[in-house]
Amino acid sequence: MTGHVYFVSSGPGDPDLLTIRAARCLAEADVVLFDDLSSGPILALCRPGADLVAVGKRAGRPSPKQDHVSRLLVDHAQTGARVVRLKSGDGGIFGRLEEEILALQEAGICYEIIPGVTTACAAAAAAGIPLTRRLTARRVQFITGADTTGNLPDDLNWAALADPLATTVVFMGKRTFPRLAEALVAHGLPPDTPALLAEAVGHPDQSLHRSTIAALATSLAGGRSDKPALILYGPLADPAEG
Amino acid sequence: MTGHVYFVSSGPGDPDLLTIRAARCLAEADVVLFDDLSSGPILALCRPGADLVAVGKRAGRPSPKQDHVSRLLVDHAQTGARVVRLKSGDGGIFGRLEEEILALQEAGICYEIIPGVTTACAAAAAAGIPLTRRLTARRVQFITGADTTGNLPDDLNWAALADPLATTVVFMGKRTFPRLAEALVAHGLPPDTPALLAEAVGHPDQSLHRSTIAALATSLAGGRSDKPALILYGPLADPAEG
Repeated sequence: MTGHVYFVSSGPGDPDLLTIRAARCLAEADVVLFDDLSSGPILALCRPGADLVAVGKRAGRPSPKQDHVSRLLVDHAQTGARVVRLKSGDGGIFGRLEEEILALQEAGICYEIIPGVTTACAAAAAAGIPLTRRLTARRVQFITGADTTGNLPDDLNWAALADPLATTVVFMGKRTFPRLAEALVAHGLPPDTPALLAEAVGHPDQSLHRSTIAALATSLAGGRSDKPALILYGPLADPAEG
Repeated sequence: MTGHVYFVSSGPGDPDLLTIRAARCLAEADVVLFDDLSSGPILALCRPGADLVAVGKRAGRPSPKQDHVSRLLVDHAQTGARVVRLKSGDGGIFGRLEEEILALQEAGICYEIIPGVTTACAAAAAAGIPLTRRLTARRVQFITGADTTGNLPDDLNWAALADPLATTVVFMGKRTFPRLAEALVAHGLPPDTPALLAEAVGHPDQSLHRSTIAALATSLAGGRSDKPALILYGPLADPAEG
């Protein structure tokens, strides 16, 4: 008995944005390891008696080390349990999946990835806009605004990021956005490039705030909520506005 | 009565990868306008008696003009019908949503976008790999390999695309990949950069083929199936291989 791990993408947080397959995996799991971002009403889909284990960085206690999470996954799977590792958004996008996959492979445990709705797509949908546009946004890119130390990564590709013909979605970037925006403008992106701050996407307290990269940078430098957020910038205008 | 249009993202094609919300929208729709890519078993979720209208480019007949699709959407919505516009993958990514949204706005019709699992995430999940990696792939980008004439777009950002630290997903790029790969190598991307050809993702005849950008370019230049496909390239190694 070596067990089986399902990496289940929860989508942004609204249980209605789970896939049918993800909902079925949750209903059948013996053990669910979850991050705080993907918790709440989604966990209500687990069967009574399932073992629910909080391992996320936002669970209101010191952040468990990644290798501790991997260890827990392996240990639970080796009991022969049907284990779900719940990841917010799409697990393959900024979910640090590779570290947990490696631990499973080293332990000889099978795994499967259930893709989900990335929060980037959910944020754009909530704002009523597409991420790509035939003429003005033929490229869309997702980056993280914070490296493992919480700072702006120092190896960013400015030619890619300051491209006015791309839509960019910044994950975990609220704190570093003032510095990011300053660098984008220094690399030629117009300060009045549209920006969208999308907080708590898919949660009851979701909020969307349309702005420009310069104005949003100023606003975030002056203080911010601790809600999880994405920042989109690029050709984001309402289609009726061009 | 002005009706209401739901842009429903179908995910890659497997009905299990629909969101719960998308499935509910389909079950409640009076009219469903669908592309061929998102048809098949997903349409079985529509209620008996719903009006199913094929408008896609792959419906085995001359491609309807985009403004004809927009006209159909407006006409159906103006009857007061509950209209679903089904889009494959996530509708906001290469779904040309902006043109249909504009037509609805001009006609004063409300709309809502239901996000879905983009085929890019589904392809990576099927291959058992993440799209981002903490150290080696901090950026992920989606591009289209064909402009409206079917050729490689002429305004590609090579500094963005030839970046070895990004994972790139090319939509609709099978025919132009030999030219794209040649240009990527000319711009400094190593020819042995891992590549993955993912065909018919989420369909019963799904196939995945691991290769390198140079080898895949050679293989595709020698002929190819007409299955819809994505091409991924970048740091795609199995996590156990580094």
